[in-house]
Amino acid sequence: MRELAILGIGQTPVAESWETSLREQASEAVLKALQDAGREGVDALFVGNMLSGILSHQEALGTLIADWAGLRHIEAVKVEAACGSGAAALRLAIMAVGSGEIDSAIALGVEKMTEMKGADTTAALAEAADADYETPHGLSFVALNALVMRRYLYEYGWKHTDFAPFSINAHANALHNPYARLHEAITEKDYQNARMVAEPINLLDASPIGDGAAAVLIVPLEHLRHRNGKGRPVVAIAGSTAATDTLAVHDRKDVTLLSAAASSASRAYAQAGVTPQDIDLFELHDAFSIMTALSLEACGFAERGQAPRLGLDGHIHPGGRIPICTLGGLKARGHPVGATGIYQIAEVVQQLRGEAGPTQLDGARIGMAQNIGGSGATIITHILRVK
Amino acid sequence: MRELAILGIGQTPVAESWETSLREQASEAVLKALQDAGREGVDALFVGNMLSGILSHQEALGTLIADWAGLRHIEAVKVEAACGSGAAALRLAIMAVGSGEIDSAIALGVEKMTEMKGADTTAALAEAADADYETPHGLSFVALNALVMRRYLYEYGWKHTDFAPFSINAHANALHNPYARLHEAITEKDYQNARMVAEPINLLDASPIGDGAAAVLIVPLEHLRHRNGKGRPVVAIAGSTAATDTLAVHDRKDVTLLSAAASSASRAYAQAGVTPQDIDLFELHDAFSIMTALSLEACGFAERGQAPRLGLDGHIHPGGRIPICTLGGLKARGHPVGATGIYQIAEVVQQLRGEAGPTQLDGARIGMAQNIGGSGATIITHILRVK
Repeated sequence: MRELAILGIGQTPVAESWETSLREQASEAVLKALQDAGREGVDALFVGNMLSGILSHQEALGTLIADWAGLRHIEAVKVEAACGSGAAALRLAIMAVGSGEIDSAIALGVEKMTEMKGADTTAALAEAADADYETPHGLSFVALNALVMRRYLYEYGWKHTDFAPFSINAHANALHNPYARLHEAITEKDYQNARMVAEPINLLDASPIGDGAAAVLIVPLEHLRHRNGKGRPVVAIAGSTAATDTLAVHDRKDVTLLSAAASSASRAYAQAGVTPQDIDLFELHDAFSIMTALSLEACGFAERGQAPRLGLDGHIHPGGRIPICTLGGLKARGHPVGATGIYQIAEVVQQLRGEAGPTQLDGARIGMAQNIGGSGATIITHILRVK
Repeated sequence: MRELAILGIGQTPVAESWETSLREQASEAVLKALQDAGREGVDALFVGNMLSGILSHQEALGTLIADWAGLRHIEAVKVEAACGSGAAALRLAIMAVGSGEIDSAIALGVEKMTEMKGADTTAALAEAADADYETPHGLSFVALNALVMRRYLYEYGWKHTDFAPFSINAHANALHNPYARLHEAITEKDYQNARMVAEPINLLDASPIGDGAAAVLIVPLEHLRHRNGKGRPVVAIAGSTAATDTLAVHDRKDVTLLSAAASSASRAYAQAGVTPQDIDLFELHDAFSIMTALSLEACGFAERGQAPRLGLDGHIHPGGRIPICTLGGLKARGHPVGATGIYQIAEVVQQLRGEAGPTQLDGARIGMAQNIGGSGATIITHILRVK
């Protein structure tokens, strides 16, 4: 497969955007990515989205958004892998451009979750769990994660408050990100006193949903050769992998091991020729704080059961050993589910370009993003690198 | 992109399968394709499906079906392009294996439309139309096609009965296809007397929905070199293209021209190095008989407004100039929407292998399939050829 680069990024603010339709938000992100890339057109559009059919009564999103964004007639399709839909769209765009079949593609993630007042978004999100064997028992997504977190606390002897640094870091990093949903710092006391959602998960363990769209434009690296030495850094795609696990959590031998994260991360490291020590930042899928811990462990940044130590010892902040959620993560940037995977990629690009604002990392050259669909069921890892 | 071949196919009968779940039907098709290919595993699964989130309350189908089919841990994703979801999944599988990123993939189409008694399937299907500008006016899919057919009859002066040969041919060809939904020959009189659905479309202009799953396994052609000279013919992928048009029919300047069909077909011909005269069979998207006419014209088999002449003059039957719907088409094999595109491919493979039964074409070497999402909104064309 030929080498690829990300030429443009576009994001809309994650928010409750009752006044802006799905197609409007999606088109805004697409047009921003084109503008950022200095392009007027693109060969294909891959749309990552989970809920439009359920919440907006609209399928055929690929064609709809291509048309609405002024890209009528191009190849376009929608991709769904639950909350991993965004990165899934990127991975398909990568293989499409990488194959030589097309010369450019936009991977868009979009989710419109505040579409109809009174819509049961929790039930809609539960469609990412097993509809025959999990949801009939009343298991929501937060309940599934609560079961996993409870098991983790029991196995490894941590207290709930040991997870506080993950959420505190995410909120601090979102403060100056204009696209973030939440702009408020939190303290350990706030975390301890937060309202319980599904024990042991409280409100400050959980990421907020929202509306949002983010897009990235992919081109062959060789098309950018002439840019060397001028302008902003070229961000290349160094690794792209996907793996799955059982959809139902109860089918796993060990619920505190994200085997699909371990598998996709180790293959991404091999593709990029790097080890976890080489990663300058990691945009992980902190839908719930327990997922932060499990991702860090599965990807080799901590031993099994030891990830909370990274937070407690101050290694996850900008400037730390492995900065995570550098622009807020799912916890504070927000989690418009099918869009999240592309927000993560756009944020890694911002860091590698030196365009990340107050939480800019010094000299970041290699960044990783990992997007998760279901409770660890579909896991997609990308490694980006400055060329 | 490297050259590819279809090594295995699998189909389930299109039917009202109340007793068989979505995952069971999907897995059956996947396992049949693996068995047909003589393989036990595959690198990735691309699932084409439109309605599982709406009718079955189940998303994350890629991961679910990979696990259920015994392929736990492989890369898997769902793809949606309305009724074109099946071919969209195939096209993504082609680019993925073609890129060299993976060495084999299954493209699966699956749809479970008889999931809940009383479910409003017509409303669910209308999600392939524009939810802001078409469906609020009460336009169902059959109504949209009726508007287009009425315009066509007015523009070109045909009578409704001039479309009868399309449906008669489809029903005749399905008689001995064990996977077809309908096994009953129809006459011109049956066609004329059929119950009206949305004038001028009557029941025998319209394809029946149903449950079904079909799968094809893709590998690099070079992996099959050693098979030359023995066993059944190798079926290579000679062309694969996709194009879009406006989602809303009213946004088109000319509603009787399928511009996305013309665009994707002409590029597929160029890829394969053929002309319409070289095509031995054409599995087209006859969801409604008007679509048969428009597809034949857009793809160069008839002049604008002249396609009914092909039927009236006996050119579309097996043995005719351009045989269509050789195993029943959508009209009689049935139209489990997201699965249809893969049924079409499996049928072309059957014809090219000489495994098509009583409607086997003599010496067929090049076959085309075209799958449509929405009312001509997303159109995907594949050309297969015996190597």
